[in-house]
Amino acid sequence: MKSSLIQLSIILLFSFIYIPVMTQDKISGFDRDASQKQKALEEKFDSHLNNDSLRARLKILSARPHHVGSEYGRMNVDYIVSRFNAWGFETNVETYYVLFPTPEILELEVVSPVHYKAKLKEPVLPEDGTSDQTDEQLPSYNAYSIDGDVTAEVVFVNYGLPADYDELERRGIDVAGKIVLAKYYGSWRGIKPKVAFEHGAIGCLIYTDPKDDGYFQGDVYPKGAFKRADGVQRGSVMDMPYYPGDPLTPGYGATKKAKRLTKEEAKTITKIPVLPISAEDALPILASLEGPVAPESWRGALPITYHLGPGKTKVHLKLKFNWDLKEAYNVIAILKGSQYPDEWIMRGNHHDAWVNGAHDPLSGLIALMEEARSIGKMAIQGWRPKRTLVYAAWDAEEPGLIGSTEWVEDHQDELKEKLVVYINTDGNGRGFLYAGGSHTLEQLVNEVAEAVPDPQIGISVAERVRALRLFSKNPVEREEAEARKNLRISPLGSGSDYSPFLQHLGIPSLNIGFAGENLGGSYHSIFDSFDHYIRFNDPKMDYGIVLAKTTGRLTLRLSEAEYLPFDFNSFADNIAKYVDEVVELADKMREETVRENNLIKQGKYKAVLDPTKQVLPPKIKDEVPYINFAPLQNALTMLKEESSVTMKVLDNLSAANVPSEKVAELNKLIYQAEQKLTAKGLPRRPWYIHQIYAPGFYTGYGVKTLPGIREAIEQRNWQEVDEQMKVTAEVLDRYSEQLVKIRDKASQLK
Amino acid sequence: MKSSLIQLSIILLFSFIYIPVMTQDKISGFDRDASQKQKALEEKFDSHLNNDSLRARLKILSARPHHVGSEYGRMNVDYIVSRFNAWGFETNVETYYVLFPTPEILELEVVSPVHYKAKLKEPVLPEDGTSDQTDEQLPSYNAYSIDGDVTAEVVFVNYGLPADYDELERRGIDVAGKIVLAKYYGSWRGIKPKVAFEHGAIGCLIYTDPKDDGYFQGDVYPKGAFKRADGVQRGSVMDMPYYPGDPLTPGYGATKKAKRLTKEEAKTITKIPVLPISAEDALPILASLEGPVAPESWRGALPITYHLGPGKTKVHLKLKFNWDLKEAYNVIAILKGSQYPDEWIMRGNHHDAWVNGAHDPLSGLIALMEEARSIGKMAIQGWRPKRTLVYAAWDAEEPGLIGSTEWVEDHQDELKEKLVVYINTDGNGRGFLYAGGSHTLEQLVNEVAEAVPDPQIGISVAERVRALRLFSKNPVEREEAEARKNLRISPLGSGSDYSPFLQHLGIPSLNIGFAGENLGGSYHSIFDSFDHYIRFNDPKMDYGIVLAKTTGRLTLRLSEAEYLPFDFNSFADNIAKYVDEVVELADKMREETVRENNLIKQGKYKAVLDPTKQVLPPKIKDEVPYINFAPLQNALTMLKEESSVTMKVLDNLSAANVPSEKVAELNKLIYQAEQKLTAKGLPRRPWYIHQIYAPGFYTGYGVKTLPGIREAIEQRNWQEVDEQMKVTAEVLDRYSEQLVKIRDKASQLK
Repeated sequence: MKSSLIQLSIILLFSFIYIPVMTQDKISGFDRDASQKQKALEEKFDSHLNNDSLRARLKILSARPHHVGSEYGRMNVDYIVSRFNAWGFETNVETYYVLFPTPEILELEVVSPVHYKAKLKEPVLPEDGTSDQTDEQLPSYNAYSIDGDVTAEVVFVNYGLPADYDELERRGIDVAGKIVLAKYYGSWRGIKPKVAFEHGAIGCLIYTDPKDDGYFQGDVYPKGAFKRADGVQRGSVMDMPYYPGDPLTPGYGATKKAKRLTKEEAKTITKIPVLPISAEDALPILASLEGPVAPESWRGALPITYHLGPGKTKVHLKLKFNWDLKEAYNVIAILKGSQYPDEWIMRGNHHDAWVNGAHDPLSGLIALMEEARSIGKMAIQGWRPKRTLVYAAWDAEEPGLIGSTEWVEDHQDELKEKLVVYINTDGNGRGFLYAGGSHTLEQLVNEVAEAVPDPQIGISVAERVRALRLFSKNPVEREEAEARKNLRISPLGSGSDYSPFLQHLGIPSLNIGFAGENLGGSYHSIFDSFDHYIRFNDPKMDYGIVLAKTTGRLTLRLSEAEYLPFDFNSFADNIAKYVDEVVELADKMREETVRENNLIKQGKYKAVLDPTKQVLPPKIKDEVPYINFAPLQNALTMLKEESSVTMKVLDNLSAANVPSEKVAELNKLIYQAEQKLTAKGLPRRPWYIHQIYAPGFYTGYGVKTLPGIREAIEQRNWQEVDEQMKVTAEVLDRYSEQLVKIRDKASQLK
Repeated sequence: MKSSLIQLSIILLFSFIYIPVMTQDKISGFDRDASQKQKALEEKFDSHLNNDSLRARLKILSARPHHVGSEYGRMNVDYIVSRFNAWGFETNVETYYVLFPTPEILELEVVSPVHYKAKLKEPVLPEDGTSDQTDEQLPSYNAYSIDGDVTAEVVFVNYGLPADYDELERRGIDVAGKIVLAKYYGSWRGIKPKVAFEHGAIGCLIYTDPKDDGYFQGDVYPKGAFKRADGVQRGSVMDMPYYPGDPLTPGYGATKKAKRLTKEEAKTITKIPVLPISAEDALPILASLEGPVAPESWRGALPITYHLGPGKTKVHLKLKFNWDLKEAYNVIAILKGSQYPDEWIMRGNHHDAWVNGAHDPLSGLIALMEEARSIGKMAIQGWRPKRTLVYAAWDAEEPGLIGSTEWVEDHQDELKEKLVVYINTDGNGRGFLYAGGSHTLEQLVNEVAEAVPDPQIGISVAERVRALRLFSKNPVEREEAEARKNLRISPLGSGSDYSPFLQHLGIPSLNIGFAGENLGGSYHSIFDSFDHYIRFNDPKMDYGIVLAKTTGRLTLRLSEAEYLPFDFNSFADNIAKYVDEVVELADKMREETVRENNLIKQGKYKAVLDPTKQVLPPKIKDEVPYINFAPLQNALTMLKEESSVTMKVLDNLSAANVPSEKVAELNKLIYQAEQKLTAKGLPRRPWYIHQIYAPGFYTGYGVKTLPGIREAIEQRNWQEVDEQMKVTAEVLDRYSEQLVKIRDKASQLK
């Protein structure tokens, strides 16, 4: 589900290790001898991976549309089950009953002064073998739009984010009673109707500007990869930063008999009707808008002057959906651990798509299946993992991480006990490794990335990312790429199935993939097809293989390590960075507020603004007080000390002559440490309980670290800053206490 | 001639004084009593200025096309002469015989694989009353393109600057034997064919992308101001950074009997045929190009994927010109000084246009004429200026500053003796004051700008510019806007008639105008008309009045001051800034060269570049040695000391009881100081002898301060850096010696 533009920005946040391969004689979590055995195991694992197998599986799984509730979706589930069974996994389908609206009426027309009926349809192309499956394709729509029938003038709102409405207000433009036209990108798409509603709009259209994805970026499909002017991005507009998953069962599994909210009670369904449209359908509306010319950064690549609106043009938007519950099928395949069966290492990737979904999600799913096939082959040859491996193929990710969320909510007690790490994948492509996740896993990820060669360049995938970071525009990132031992992994926001594990339970999680050189354009369109993928994404399936090598190593190192290779120093170091960031955020906001308020008060805006354009100065802003960061800073100091001392103890620990149950006791303290970072939920969204990572309330995909503090500062809610400072300091203190427990336990094992 | 985009960038470089109006009891160059009288004079001057008079004169002068050699051009000259005569000036026309090619054949067609014949024509519009004067309009062409008849493939070269060709080379694209297609803007347009030729191209097309001027910026004419897709920018492509003026008479006046180079000997005529075209005519060529997709910053706003080319498409370009000499008429109007008749204050603005030229140049010319009318009125009432006022209306500025350059070259000995300051204007518009010029005049300009109120906002035009600088993205500029007493005036490059005065003779010069809120689109097109100007530039003529108030004050303060209000401390302070800049330039280049060479050598580019795209790393660059800046730094130290001491003496000087001829001796030393900044010409372009200011060899409009040193560093010519360091240090030393002479002379007057 995560968009390719978002993935690119994640790459830019991400960086990697620079340990020459020879120093990897010792793998974290293994002693020297065990390291050699582990490497042999990984080589064996690699030897089973096969490009043709990936390609064949992609062809099968993408052969027909397979959205939630579709016939082919069920057939894919059966196929996946049959494969896992064949590979020796104990495989089950766990079914949830979830709200997934599908369109009955989708109508959009310009009604005056001219008449234009929007096509709302992507074309059949002879060059794309599955584009003609029109009977089975879901129309282009936004799931969780409410039903509606509205006629109104239109205002162009850029990406439709809060700051965009500030700019409109300065130009005297009010969207109350209007339909807004927003561009895709810049945030989770569900933010756009949410913010539009907050400003009084009665409808929301979302289109893809060719500047963001289309001819401006490169040749359009089928000549090139990019989005045609008549291409449409489908997608959910659920208010996911409030909670993901089935809108009717927040916090618990959507089992057959679960108690459900009514649709009207569900807070994640939009308040106004929303429809995605193509650039072609947006053009007549945009071209007819009046009012001021849009600010330069708002303008796209259509051959018109972008005006803000409104104008004489009125559009009529009519939407009606089928709100029946649909069945969502999660495939869960288990290979039981020989030594620590109650410690689980879990892999997951969703299987549902908006249409054929070759890239999203199948490119990730086929790599997950290839990884499982190889492990299954080793298991059939007599090998067993020490810990239990759990492979999941999630349904209903596209509408809002529903399959995974319901399963996580349904199994939460068991997961908090047993789940060591959840490793997620989703759409995969050619290029650079991106890795996000819990910072305790930074060292593990770095070691794995250093061990996997890039299929195009030959150097390790880590080295390739480090090289990329050397070209960063951010001097700190460049310096770190040159000097920091491990390159950072990025913190996780939302956009794929790791979210419920990490943010609702506090399970250490990773999200892994490759991107940056594959070309966009197919995202959530009927052209996310086998034909498109094979031409423009990963033609030889080399990056499918390299993904399997990467996630396979992560899985196998976690399943086979004696002591879990968690690195608390990395965690502390990243927290230190986030603490610096929020302190700097407040300082910068304080300085800028004073400066800008002065410019307003002294009439400098009025002196500079063109009086014929009637643009108002910004409003005077609430000044930023000095904030008491001491609780957080003291908690950080303790965290650094405790992690440093604890890691010294752990680094010198041997598993020789230690009984398994003692090892298990220590490991459980280690992997449950992340749960200490959870508390009562974040303000206004109790589902999100992790106090270090959350998707932004107004970004949706984008992460906010230390979210309670950071968002309270951003929203200028000073009382809440103080409250959240305490909550965050407390979870860090509890984490430090857990480090002491880990150390004490480890000392007993010596 | 200077483009409106360029003017905008000048505004951003420019900033102004913040002395409250009340402190202006004393005007620099006047004692307290004289200051009061001067203010009364200026109020009287203002009282004669009249918006209707400006409007009527704009209507007359722009009524028909009036390019060099045209019938209406001659009629305008006669009109201007009659006006100046009527206002009491002694007026003459000085004629030069100059090379000004006009088109006989202009043909461009796509010849394969499809056929497209370029229109090369702007349309007649009923909304624009002069657009139908097709018989008198010069076609859209580039003057000083050689004749040519070439057929070739096409390569898109962005703005066609040297760095653009580096990018093409990294992508394996060679323009040798090809026709290049370049966008307008980014440099003086003559740079584009020069650099294309240097890289082996055989033809050059230049088009206006709608991103730079067209629907991307705002509504197009006649709905709005901006350039239509079928609009074309005419203009000269003379290699002006080599020398401006008549190509056949470099360095001396193009009088009837002057010895002339042959056309083939003239180095400022292009080596390849060049033609400007509209976006509409460029589209079929751009759309058919193959090869890699252009870098993102190169792409414009046409609804296509921008490819670099070449491809199957071939175009045929055929150009033939009439190379006869044409007569260029400079109007020179003199009002003799009563006290210092051999000290001249000169104002100038060109009168020739590419077509009707309402904005360029008439909006400046009508303000100059209004200023002269008011002064004439005062003279008729009995007042006489102390110094001689010389008003010039230049011909043949558009083809390459020809009228002014020939006159300057022809009168150079007299000008070096008598001319105190040359004050230039050109196209004028609504918005913010911009002022460029010799830094000795910074204080004068600041005081004047503080005394003139902005007609829209009420605060002084200086305060308005200072406010603008508070919003600069450059923190140093913001700080200076807050704290520096005088706001800086920008150094002068080229693009209007100040160039020969300043850069060929070392005459202190200014260039003054308003811009920033008037809208572009008409530049060098048939739509630079009265109708366009009145709607989109300065509807009420308020900024014509404010320009007259500004330049009138500058003129009158210079003509009436007892001791000339030159400020050598400002000069020294600005030189200090430029010295810092060139030192930093070398340091930064050294650092970046080492860093980038290492990235290349260590294979980091190869690690990062997409191997399927076949982009090469940049080439290893010559390392930057440590440079001996000591001669320059020592000269600067002396300059600072001498200017400081000298200004203390001048500030305490009274003219009471000092004989006129003694005052004149001192003033002559003061205004001739600038000539000490000249030396033998810059490397490879001996016409440019000013060692502080020159247009960049590869920018054309854009200034290079300390040009000998700066361009040698930029071109990595280390031997030349050392040579130029000496030359520059020597002129600064000579300048310091002049300051000592000034001080000595002033001391004798006490």
